[in-house]
Amino acid sequence: MSTSAQIGVTGLAVMGRNLARNFARNGYTVAVHNRTAARTRALVEEFGGEGEFVAAETAEEFVAALERPRRLVVMVKAGEPTDAVIGEFAPLLEPGDMIIDGGNAHFADTRRREAELRERGIHFVGTGISGGEEGALNGPSIMPGGSKESYASLGPMLEKISAKAADGTPCVTHVGPDGAGHFVKMVHNGIEYADMQLIGEAYQLLRDVAGYEPARIAEIFRTWNTGRLDSYLIEITAEVLSHVDAATGRPFVDVVTDRAEQKGTGRWTVQIALDLGVPVSGIAEAVFARSLSGHAALRAASRGLAGPTPSPLDEAEAAAFADRVEQALYASKIVSYTQGFHEVAAGSEEYGWSIDLGRVAAIWRGGCIIRAAFLDRIRAAYDARPDLPSLLSDETFAREIAAAQDDWREVLVAATRQGVPAPGFAAALAYYDALRAERLPAALTQGQRDFFGAHTYRRTDREGSFHTLWGGDRSEVPA
Amino acid sequence: MSTSAQIGVTGLAVMGRNLARNFARNGYTVAVHNRTAARTRALVEEFGGEGEFVAAETAEEFVAALERPRRLVVMVKAGEPTDAVIGEFAPLLEPGDMIIDGGNAHFADTRRREAELRERGIHFVGTGISGGEEGALNGPSIMPGGSKESYASLGPMLEKISAKAADGTPCVTHVGPDGAGHFVKMVHNGIEYADMQLIGEAYQLLRDVAGYEPARIAEIFRTWNTGRLDSYLIEITAEVLSHVDAATGRPFVDVVTDRAEQKGTGRWTVQIALDLGVPVSGIAEAVFARSLSGHAALRAASRGLAGPTPSPLDEAEAAAFADRVEQALYASKIVSYTQGFHEVAAGSEEYGWSIDLGRVAAIWRGGCIIRAAFLDRIRAAYDARPDLPSLLSDETFAREIAAAQDDWREVLVAATRQGVPAPGFAAALAYYDALRAERLPAALTQGQRDFFGAHTYRRTDREGSFHTLWGGDRSEVPA
Repeated sequence: MSTSAQIGVTGLAVMGRNLARNFARNGYTVAVHNRTAARTRALVEEFGGEGEFVAAETAEEFVAALERPRRLVVMVKAGEPTDAVIGEFAPLLEPGDMIIDGGNAHFADTRRREAELRERGIHFVGTGISGGEEGALNGPSIMPGGSKESYASLGPMLEKISAKAADGTPCVTHVGPDGAGHFVKMVHNGIEYADMQLIGEAYQLLRDVAGYEPARIAEIFRTWNTGRLDSYLIEITAEVLSHVDAATGRPFVDVVTDRAEQKGTGRWTVQIALDLGVPVSGIAEAVFARSLSGHAALRAASRGLAGPTPSPLDEAEAAAFADRVEQALYASKIVSYTQGFHEVAAGSEEYGWSIDLGRVAAIWRGGCIIRAAFLDRIRAAYDARPDLPSLLSDETFAREIAAAQDDWREVLVAATRQGVPAPGFAAALAYYDALRAERLPAALTQGQRDFFGAHTYRRTDREGSFHTLWGGDRSEVPA
Repeated sequence: MSTSAQIGVTGLAVMGRNLARNFARNGYTVAVHNRTAARTRALVEEFGGEGEFVAAETAEEFVAALERPRRLVVMVKAGEPTDAVIGEFAPLLEPGDMIIDGGNAHFADTRRREAELRERGIHFVGTGISGGEEGALNGPSIMPGGSKESYASLGPMLEKISAKAADGTPCVTHVGPDGAGHFVKMVHNGIEYADMQLIGEAYQLLRDVAGYEPARIAEIFRTWNTGRLDSYLIEITAEVLSHVDAATGRPFVDVVTDRAEQKGTGRWTVQIALDLGVPVSGIAEAVFARSLSGHAALRAASRGLAGPTPSPLDEAEAAAFADRVEQALYASKIVSYTQGFHEVAAGSEEYGWSIDLGRVAAIWRGGCIIRAAFLDRIRAAYDARPDLPSLLSDETFAREIAAAQDDWREVLVAATRQGVPAPGFAAALAYYDALRAERLPAALTQGQRDFFGAHTYRRTDREGSFHTLWGGDRSEVPA
């Protein structure tokens, strides 16, 4: 076997297989390896015509097939399987070689692995890959972390296989050192949860308040997809809503069980945001909405609880309401992205990653699940002002949200009065109103904390920490 | 030195000192010890007249002063200091002795410590203690985990020093094995965050929408405190709001910086709830509200964002609005406790703790920060039906929330239209409306997930998992 392969992929389940094919279709010779060799053979038999593959049966053969410095892509389950594969291959590698982990690893694991392998001279590149099976094959959005040196070697190949934005830019960038890539992928998924929840709320409001059937709502989403909401998720929402179940002749969405599942990256996004002190209420509500939907017994026990029954609007009112929902959805989406980018900025600060937020927006424009026209405007906002305090500080977004807000508020008024749950819309608006508030009740919170726990407080009119002798004469003492 | 002490306390900062005094005042001989002996001497000099203390200068003296089986209470900072103290004392102890950790430990640390010490025959009792300095001295609410055997030995002493509920019951119970006590204390604190946030929102609405000054709002809270909202937090809210800053003559709440701080147990409550799949949106919004308030630069950059300016109501409308706010606060509070007790139930299930939810409510009735008349009704609800699917399934609470909901909704409508952030009220209502919903947009979410990731879905009309060939002829296949 010759050392002819520029890249190797181990772990040939659908994501790994499609990624290997993507490299081969782009002219690279790809070494392929899998724990069970039958899968390796099947790949070469079925897709061997697409390019140059080198099928390796053993770890040793696989490593031997790679040009040096070696580029070894690991596409196995996050967690223990990833550690097992690293443990198997690392001893066979040499200084300067690269292990690229393309799974959905927790960024803290990636940081640990990177540090361990760095000591042995091996580059560990934790890499977010978004776009599902189809993206892996035809062009995903790729978010690699790791060393600059490894990106110099890998970058050109990743740029070739990645999705391209409308302006032709490859949807890949060196996100930052060690766990930066997986961190950004995690937040991408958190934002995806929020996007999906907001779309779900818009759908439910159009259904219950406007009184529209799914087919009609599909048309509305199709129209929205030609405007500023133009995005993959809006596009497929229209597809799902217009689909009719063949077995029953009913709208597909009505025969699907309404219990949403999740795999964990949304949850991580919220947990890490809590550690970083970043409010990501929209993402949290999206994660909670999925878990709530899954508590079947609790829901069954709660169906009899009192509440209004929505009374659908008449035709003209319904059409006007649908326009308002578009405003509410767009405004809430701006808030979601504001929260998500705040988390990326906070992670970058905490771990010294120097992440370029404009580049993150740029590489999400194509290939990934949240790809959207909107992301080019986020890119532009950060490119124009890299130190933007938040997306809401961008003039364009601020102006749009100003124009949307009356409708946004009225949609929430309708949801509130008619009993249609809209936790994502509501959390987004509360965040917006809290951020712009002159004063928050946090002052009262601090007063209470000082009262029951002597936790002290600061004053608006002078420096220092203070405590009031609540149990005594209520005079104030410096703390 | 004789082995005369029934209990020992090491770590004599304010909580430890007050707990030691509480034991002594209740007739126990208390061995006291601190890393720096000066503090031990100071305690005995200052409070020696309150009871029998045995001052120990060294760890050896401290252990030697204790009756066997020894009961050794550790009152140091959670985290490494706790491990350090355990590491110092455990080698000096014998099988059957007990180490009681009264700090705010993470329950996972408590589980680890309990398992390690159990192997050496030592009982480790992770114990939540709520009530602050004053509670530690005069009667806290105590939440011990650990073995039944240790509770048999410790329980009577804890019952003596604990707060007593209005009916005379001591506010302490054996919560469950290993980390159960610290878990329940964590959720207690999470609920405390939510309670404080809801009170803050009620205050802000009374200020901005009703147009009331703090002194007037204090009167309203004082009135509420005579009704179903009767609780320590409502009581101290009235005290804080009526307090006038001596230096400026202004309401105290207006001179306090509106940036709330936090110590971590609220954040843990949300992080663990996410792991357990329990929606605790009200607690999450409370934690996020605190972190948002602290982002001073972000808030400063956002103050110019567009939004309505509240226009205060006239006198009669304001009074009616204040009554509605009481309804909204009460209904939201029921939801907070529903979410918190759901988390306790889920933790109990996950870790096999068999926690009696009615007992948890019972021991929170006195001594702790969230003590409230309301908790006796939660106790009654779980006592009447230990398998209650949720607090909302209790007939009394369901009836009250039914009666409150029109006002609850209208308060949110006012907040939404007038731009006053009410994330806690809004999250609570959305949770309520989602739980009682016949159908949720989670069905659409599952359709989208199947579309972009082949994640499959279930059907309402038959068993199994299914996938639609979205990229093909859109027929359905079993998964």
